Amino acid sequence: MTEDFSITIVGLGLIGGSIAKAIRENLKVKNLWAVDINKEALEEAKDSGIIDGFFQDDSIPLKGSDIVILCTYPNAALEFMRRNMEHFRKNAIITDTSGIKGKIVEEARKILRHDLEFIGGHPMSGKESTGYRISDGTIFRGSNYIITPHESNSKETVLLLKNMMLKIGFRKVIELEPKTHDRIIAYTSQLPHILACTVMNSESFHAGRDCIGGSFKDMTRVADINGELWSELLIENKENILAELSSVMSDLEDIYHMIEREDADSLKSAFRKSGNLRKEMKYEKS
Amino acid sequence: MTEDFSITIVGLGLIGGSIAKAIRENLKVKNLWAVDINKEALEEAKDSGIIDGFFQDDSIPLKGSDIVILCTYPNAALEFMRRNMEHFRKNAIITDTSGIKGKIVEEARKILRHDLEFIGGHPMSGKESTGYRISDGTIFRGSNYIITPHESNSKETVLLLKNMMLKIGFRKVIELEPKTHDRIIAYTSQLPHILACTVMNSESFHAGRDCIGGSFKDMTRVADINGELWSELLIENKENILAELSSVMSDLEDIYHMIEREDADSLKSAFRKSGNLRKEMKYEKS
Repeated sequence: MTEDFSITIVGLGLIGGSIAKAIRENLKVKNLWAVDINKEALEEAKDSGIIDGFFQDDSIPLKGSDIVILCTYPNAALEFMRRNMEHFRKNAIITDTSGIKGKIVEEARKILRHDLEFIGGHPMSGKESTGYRISDGTIFRGSNYIITPHESNSKETVLLLKNMMLKIGFRKVIELEPKTHDRIIAYTSQLPHILACTVMNSESFHAGRDCIGGSFKDMTRVADINGELWSELLIENKENILAELSSVMSDLEDIYHMIEREDADSLKSAFRKSGNLRKEMKYEKS
Repeated sequence: MTEDFSITIVGLGLIGGSIAKAIRENLKVKNLWAVDINKEALEEAKDSGIIDGFFQDDSIPLKGSDIVILCTYPNAALEFMRRNMEHFRKNAIITDTSGIKGKIVEEARKILRHDLEFIGGHPMSGKESTGYRISDGTIFRGSNYIITPHESNSKETVLLLKNMMLKIGFRKVIELEPKTHDRIIAYTSQLPHILACTVMNSESFHAGRDCIGGSFKDMTRVADINGELWSELLIENKENILAELSSVMSDLEDIYHMIEREDADSLKSAFRKSGNLRKEMKYEKS
């Protein structure tokens, strides 16, 4: 399906690099190019045969690309589109992979040339830490990919993007409204990241570091976070994440009072609920 | 060192079963016996050669055991000791593996026969879910074991217990005051469990279940919790866990306000700190 397509990946970090590797492993394409400010990553990817080439001048690969995958921070993706709008190939498909979708889709539509299509995307996978160095073409296996098409997108383009994501390893492709995506992701991704960092930064860590078990390790895995990216994601999704934070703080306060009044029944009932939900989730995913 | 010893494990659940398996795999002992109310687990352990036998009457293995390892809930461990004090072998060593130590060590000392020694213990490892069925002799590898000896314990006994725990797979044995243990564990273990359950139980889960990634999965792994056990652990360690909950709620409030006022610099600085700490921790553990 993509044999005759040239694809450019903009931003060859953890996600861009992983997508490049997954495309190389799973798809036939005419050309796979990359754009990044980090020349080292580009050279490494070229030398190992992951990409077919890279260019100093962004306009060259864009002019030849049927699909452009923006794997940068959200505002950088918008900025890239703005700067390069005239360079995109006629009828090209542009997609992104950043963690917020409402603003991206709205702003992209404002600046998009009429022959182009933009569809927002977001992989439900990643890794702690950052950079091409740790990118891995297999990290998408078993994860879902969210796309947030607009009514102006053609069915064919949506289907093409969906199939491409399934081919490179995603388990399911979920279609969501951009705003629904942002509301959901505040809970499923942003909240766990904030909790991980908050627990990690506690004063109590220093006394406790020899007494750490699996629960602490797993809970704090993503505390090794890309602060530049995440401060942007959180601020851009402010309303939703503040609502989730309020809700979790109020739930923690309930648990606080259950423990304070030694209300074993309420604690047991909360833990029974969480146990059942977590078991169900485990079976769903396997 | 333990070739001539008979050991009885009281409570053949996840931890008791895992210790039994780890002893069978790594130590020579004269006899390895078990006591449990769940006859199925006992029979399975006997049939597969993990234990040498079990008895209807607790007093029989206790009379012949040099070491008794209590792997029950904390209050059940105290209750077992109380009920069986006259049955323990002369000079036997009793230890436990439960998640609170202050109360256990204090109460055990009150009821202990003068020829016996009690040392509290707590493995920094486990698994979500419960029961002998999922016990595993390898779960201790790479984890630390905490012991909380009292000044009345002999050096030889402390050393014997330490060596035994190292032999069955623990990476390090840490000695702590019982009260220090309880304070630390509220942060390193109880807090992550409460956060996992609280996030899991959020109303937002139902809309979000298709949009779950690694951060959510890892953070909620231990939400599949043993509610009976954990309500007891939390209530028995009330003062410490309430302090940790207060502290994390106040830290979350700080993050809330940083996002609210779009203070990217403070967010970045918090994430830089958590990233560095988490990286350091990772290298320490490997």
